[in-house]
Amino acid sequence: MRALFAWCALLLACAGVMHCAEAAKARHLKWEVSHMFWSPDCEEKVLIGINGQFPGPTIRAKAGDTIVVELKNGLHTEGVVIHWHGVRQIGTPWADGTAAISQCAINPEETFTYRFVVDKPGTYFYHGHYGMQRAAGLYGSLIVDVADGEEEPFKYDGELNLLLSDWYHDSIYNQMVGLSSSPMRWIGEPQSLLINGRGQFNCSLAAAHTPGTKQCTAGGNRHCAPVILPVEPNKTYRLRIASTTSLASLNLAIGVSKKLTVVEADGNYVEPFVVDDMDIYSGDSYSVLLTTDQDPSSNYWVSIGVRGRTPKTAPALALLNYRPNRGFKLPAIAPPVTPLWNDTAHSKAFTTHIKARAGTPPPPATSDRRIELLNTQNKLDGHIKWSINNVSMVLPATPYLGSLKLGLKTALTAARPADTFGRAYDVTRPPHNPNTTTGDNVYVLRYNTTVDVVLQNANALQHNVSEVHPWHLHGHDFWVLGYGEGAYRGDAADAARLNLVNPPLRNTAVIFPYGWTALRFVADNPGVWAFHCHIEPHLHMGMGVIFAEAIDRVGKVPKEAVSCGATATALMNGDHL
Amino acid sequence: MRALFAWCALLLACAGVMHCAEAAKARHLKWEVSHMFWSPDCEEKVLIGINGQFPGPTIRAKAGDTIVVELKNGLHTEGVVIHWHGVRQIGTPWADGTAAISQCAINPEETFTYRFVVDKPGTYFYHGHYGMQRAAGLYGSLIVDVADGEEEPFKYDGELNLLLSDWYHDSIYNQMVGLSSSPMRWIGEPQSLLINGRGQFNCSLAAAHTPGTKQCTAGGNRHCAPVILPVEPNKTYRLRIASTTSLASLNLAIGVSKKLTVVEADGNYVEPFVVDDMDIYSGDSYSVLLTTDQDPSSNYWVSIGVRGRTPKTAPALALLNYRPNRGFKLPAIAPPVTPLWNDTAHSKAFTTHIKARAGTPPPPATSDRRIELLNTQNKLDGHIKWSINNVSMVLPATPYLGSLKLGLKTALTAARPADTFGRAYDVTRPPHNPNTTTGDNVYVLRYNTTVDVVLQNANALQHNVSEVHPWHLHGHDFWVLGYGEGAYRGDAADAARLNLVNPPLRNTAVIFPYGWTALRFVADNPGVWAFHCHIEPHLHMGMGVIFAEAIDRVGKVPKEAVSCGATATALMNGDHL
Repeated sequence: MRALFAWCALLLACAGVMHCAEAAKARHLKWEVSHMFWSPDCEEKVLIGINGQFPGPTIRAKAGDTIVVELKNGLHTEGVVIHWHGVRQIGTPWADGTAAISQCAINPEETFTYRFVVDKPGTYFYHGHYGMQRAAGLYGSLIVDVADGEEEPFKYDGELNLLLSDWYHDSIYNQMVGLSSSPMRWIGEPQSLLINGRGQFNCSLAAAHTPGTKQCTAGGNRHCAPVILPVEPNKTYRLRIASTTSLASLNLAIGVSKKLTVVEADGNYVEPFVVDDMDIYSGDSYSVLLTTDQDPSSNYWVSIGVRGRTPKTAPALALLNYRPNRGFKLPAIAPPVTPLWNDTAHSKAFTTHIKARAGTPPPPATSDRRIELLNTQNKLDGHIKWSINNVSMVLPATPYLGSLKLGLKTALTAARPADTFGRAYDVTRPPHNPNTTTGDNVYVLRYNTTVDVVLQNANALQHNVSEVHPWHLHGHDFWVLGYGEGAYRGDAADAARLNLVNPPLRNTAVIFPYGWTALRFVADNPGVWAFHCHIEPHLHMGMGVIFAEAIDRVGKVPKEAVSCGATATALMNGDHL
Repeated sequence: MRALFAWCALLLACAGVMHCAEAAKARHLKWEVSHMFWSPDCEEKVLIGINGQFPGPTIRAKAGDTIVVELKNGLHTEGVVIHWHGVRQIGTPWADGTAAISQCAINPEETFTYRFVVDKPGTYFYHGHYGMQRAAGLYGSLIVDVADGEEEPFKYDGELNLLLSDWYHDSIYNQMVGLSSSPMRWIGEPQSLLINGRGQFNCSLAAAHTPGTKQCTAGGNRHCAPVILPVEPNKTYRLRIASTTSLASLNLAIGVSKKLTVVEADGNYVEPFVVDDMDIYSGDSYSVLLTTDQDPSSNYWVSIGVRGRTPKTAPALALLNYRPNRGFKLPAIAPPVTPLWNDTAHSKAFTTHIKARAGTPPPPATSDRRIELLNTQNKLDGHIKWSINNVSMVLPATPYLGSLKLGLKTALTAARPADTFGRAYDVTRPPHNPNTTTGDNVYVLRYNTTVDVVLQNANALQHNVSEVHPWHLHGHDFWVLGYGEGAYRGDAADAARLNLVNPPLRNTAVIFPYGWTALRFVADNPGVWAFHCHIEPHLHMGMGVIFAEAIDRVGKVPKEAVSCGATATALMNGDHL
């Protein structure tokens, strides 16, 4: 209501002014989250939608706008939150949408208002961040254009948006119980990949080129109707691509052209470079430019395949529809074949190619603290967990932002997690002692310090297995200083691998099998920020840490964000935020 | 902790005293609710268990004891509560365990302590009371013996406990979405009936007597192993029977004896009477005496069949095991056939036979208020609902007990629901205008007034359909004054049908198709009490009302019970309970 008023006031104030359109807007949205039947890949299941849609509505705003989402929880017995992935929430850490971290989950029938500024143009998305609700379909696109009067540093004639996800037929309830069981029941590979919430299970749009598959019957208004991307010949299009997969690492390739110019990663401009295909890990977003310079008498395939795991899941296909061809005119040639799932060299080549565009602020030359995080797979009383420096993260009943702000004694366990795992650990073998512990994994960061994080990958419980993990940081972009093979030693050789000249700014970065990745950021955004593997089952199994950053500088937390657990009790007993 | 201390203190205080055992005890239980894989009828699904068990642990106490359950919610994203069905919660209305009514749902990872006195011996049970969590398996038995030094008014040599339920293979999430969809997707008939959480799907223990069925492979430690009830010949057993079905009305018959002496209903003694078989509606509990006077060389079937709906569900069977026969020795004769599902006359004969045992307090001779509640099936924007006096109940985000106690203006809608539906309504036909409205359905009751409730059944949306509804009242037993056919007129003829001499005290009473049922209770228990059809999908579709009783006399509500929504906000802003 107040936001609506602010917006009206703005409009009125602007009435007589010419450049009014340049003023930042409050964009007011009313959403209701609910369970609904849907058939994203033609197989029906219950998923979580917003306002009766799946995926949720696309938010489109301009840099500097204030987004106001009045989110009503229409689920029957479940809490809900929404995280605005890639939005740094400067000054509004309570709007980050992480249950048990930044806010109390919104109870059924309750409404919580998210209010935050999208300060930076780019390709973002939003998603549930409670239990495995993201994997239940709670996600959508968030696209921020440059402010009026500003220009993107590249030209294009039109835009196409591709929000990528993977899809399981089993419910997230079953998945969560399976992951927590002993013996664990792994969720397995997804049944389908989805483009903008649409996929095809048990059939292929390109059956003619895919032995042993059945041709999908295209068209109609079905939930699983193929995605058609209309383009005019000889134009340049900006493809916005983001991945909110639960598990799958993806690769995208298009038609026969195979020329994609990467210009943006995670809401930051990158030095343009041209690729034939590109990797997209869960949590990543990109913009690429595509010129429609192919024979215009044909349509072309957009193909999304799985990377890094045995690809039991068929590629997702969309149609790049050269107008005036019919949308459903199937290309005569086969879909492009995305690289082999285990071609790690190809993946590394793509990822390490990404550099900051000239003009991007460089990182501070040195850091004040280095936190080394060893990623291991472990066991806890027979349950399989992921651990960081041998502690598997368990979230508290009362969210950290409120409990730390109020200084509640119950907020943190006594021992702080370690800043290093020790150099003696052999990352090439399964853990010598596979037993892990649980903990809060809260790292307390001082204001304005520069923090280096070294993510160290290792062998999992099984011999000769080390997985890719895309780590996502809330509240910040970080500079990706570099990648290395084997154990990080912190010596001159490792230092030489770091790029302090033009490292890309991102919010998600992978660690490759048996390798390490070095990141740097400045702790200048007071709040409590999750930093975790973006693979949904891995996070569920404890693969994350928490950065509690300059809590004394956090502004007045809205009561609705802390109206649960120990913070509610403290405030009911007379404490003040 | 405090409870544990109290218990210890009691033990210490008792140390030197001979009759210590007679003192009421605090029985302290630590429970954790969680999702788990289970195969109640040999088909695996995820259900809600307690401490890794399904059904939940049986509570056994003595009249006067204080039950203390520290309930931890181990679900991942769902709230939870537990209702202690049949316990009147005198002086502890916040422990009634009804989400959105008596307390805030317990958030994941939180613990809420239920503390209440079981003041009356009898056969009770407990179950989830949030969304359709009861149907997800959240239930168990609660048995209260007479206090030390007291005696039951009947003799028996041993006891057998039968907690009856029905079982669906579809998840409650799918069921809830289906019920709320337009067009509605009805949940259909249950796949199985369970006895003490065990059933057999797609096979029969008595396949030899049931053409077209497959013999179940008996035995083992499987979740679905048949229930064996060991007895000695020529003894008298008390069978405690309770039904927590989601939908099914049941009938129980045993062996060839067919002689069951009914002695208790809903925790109240009844005038003993002998039947061949008995009906049990959802929410009912009974004790019956059975004498094991059959040929002891054989075991006998206990058979549970479905009443009142087309019985697509096979009967549940248990084995009455005459020792020393083997438990799995199958009876040579066929299981007893429970009455035809649509034999309403048989059902009425049983139900109306129940009278209070001599010594039961009689009802006040007159009442201060009569509330007539018309039960209809209606439509709301294309969705099918159940309505009371044309209002379908919708529960609020903030539970009533706290919001009414604090006098929050937001607690109630302006209009109070009507005490009558008007005499002109034709109960024999579908509603002339099928459109309903939603509302809070809160009836405000003054302290110590005597309230009559007349439940009036009617035709559903379809012609010639009127269903049985078992209505359950929280916080009270009521006297069941009588049953009538057709529309209640409130005239001398209707008055003549009322029994003011020895009506049974119960907490659950049915309305038969096209009939009415008259109840009386004294509003002497300050609190907010749900009164609703105990059929889980019917309640979900709005079939209930709320009695807000002498709120000004409610004691100090524990903060943990109101730590959500508008009550949390009010208390954080300085209001006091």
